[in-house]
Amino acid sequence: MYSSPPALEKLVQEFSKLPGIGRKTARRLVFHLISGDREKMENLANALVEAKNKLVRCHLCYGFSESEVCQICASPGRDKEILCVVERASDILPFENSGIHKGTYFVLGGVLSPLDGIKPEALHIPELIRRIEQEGIKELILALGSSPEAESTALYIDRVLANSGVRRTRLARGIPVGSDLEFIDDITMLRAFEERVKL
Amino acid sequence: MYSSPPALEKLVQEFSKLPGIGRKTARRLVFHLISGDREKMENLANALVEAKNKLVRCHLCYGFSESEVCQICASPGRDKEILCVVERASDILPFENSGIHKGTYFVLGGVLSPLDGIKPEALHIPELIRRIEQEGIKELILALGSSPEAESTALYIDRVLANSGVRRTRLARGIPVGSDLEFIDDITMLRAFEERVKL
Repeated sequence: MYSSPPALEKLVQEFSKLPGIGRKTARRLVFHLISGDREKMENLANALVEAKNKLVRCHLCYGFSESEVCQICASPGRDKEILCVVERASDILPFENSGIHKGTYFVLGGVLSPLDGIKPEALHIPELIRRIEQEGIKELILALGSSPEAESTALYIDRVLANSGVRRTRLARGIPVGSDLEFIDDITMLRAFEERVKL
Repeated sequence: MYSSPPALEKLVQEFSKLPGIGRKTARRLVFHLISGDREKMENLANALVEAKNKLVRCHLCYGFSESEVCQICASPGRDKEILCVVERASDILPFENSGIHKGTYFVLGGVLSPLDGIKPEALHIPELIRRIEQEGIKELILALGSSPEAESTALYIDRVLANSGVRRTRLARGIPVGSDLEFIDDITMLRAFEERVKL
């Protein structure tokens, strides 16, 4: 049985481990890389090593950073009284792209899932509570997903902070701008209808 | 304007250069890598560097190899009288997977395209002719694609070798096994009809 050179097979195997990259796609990527300018391979390898070594979690928000405290948490221009709670570090970018949020972020690291053994301590919920107790945070925007687990996580945090005096909000749910109504799923339509606002 | 940490942005940028990987996919891959087990990043980086350094072109067939002559060309079990000509090194695998071809391969490195300045000398056609003149090759299987350029490349090689005494063949064209006739494109149907065989 024939097999490609080991170095080629190994690289295909490593690419196949990435999410959404199957064996055929991995093979295509590898042949692209080894057939073209080999410097690209070194650039990608260097970028991987650099990212691995340099990126740490911000000590305040648990987003990715190259320093102990990330650019956003360290910025004097950000409103420290409004904290936006997200599930994953990758959820920060859409807010920043829109430029609408002037406060800071807090990355939970997941959502509660008692069946999978994910309790508050497995996330950064204790650290979140501690920050709220110690800092003058006035509003907590719970920008978690819409899965049942995410909704119950938001509810849990809301309840823990019931007597804290901190305002808890969540993002509006409704019809995305520019969407055709005929393509809107049932749950979104239900929410948009229930939460309709006065003109 | 916010931007993610430079090491993160750089890695996203490098992934975006890969074919079929847009910025959003690249970002997803990068967040997957930096959020998970960081050893994976090092493994991928090492596999890239190793592939970059070890993989060379086989001196006989121009396929990828870790030695001057690849595993297939070096194998005493392969029939040196039948040479299968392919466009790219990645085209070798489907033949090897089927196990049907007992001969060796020759990678052209592309197809002729006079409008893009790709003449016979830009491909490995002179080397192919030299091998045919010097070795006892009896059959040349032209397994190039079905684009107009690929077809005229096969035709060109066929003509150059018109008086060589070497048998020139190409792969059969027709309905893929297991395909529903209703999903067959027009050109394939045309070819399958024209080249129908007697039962």
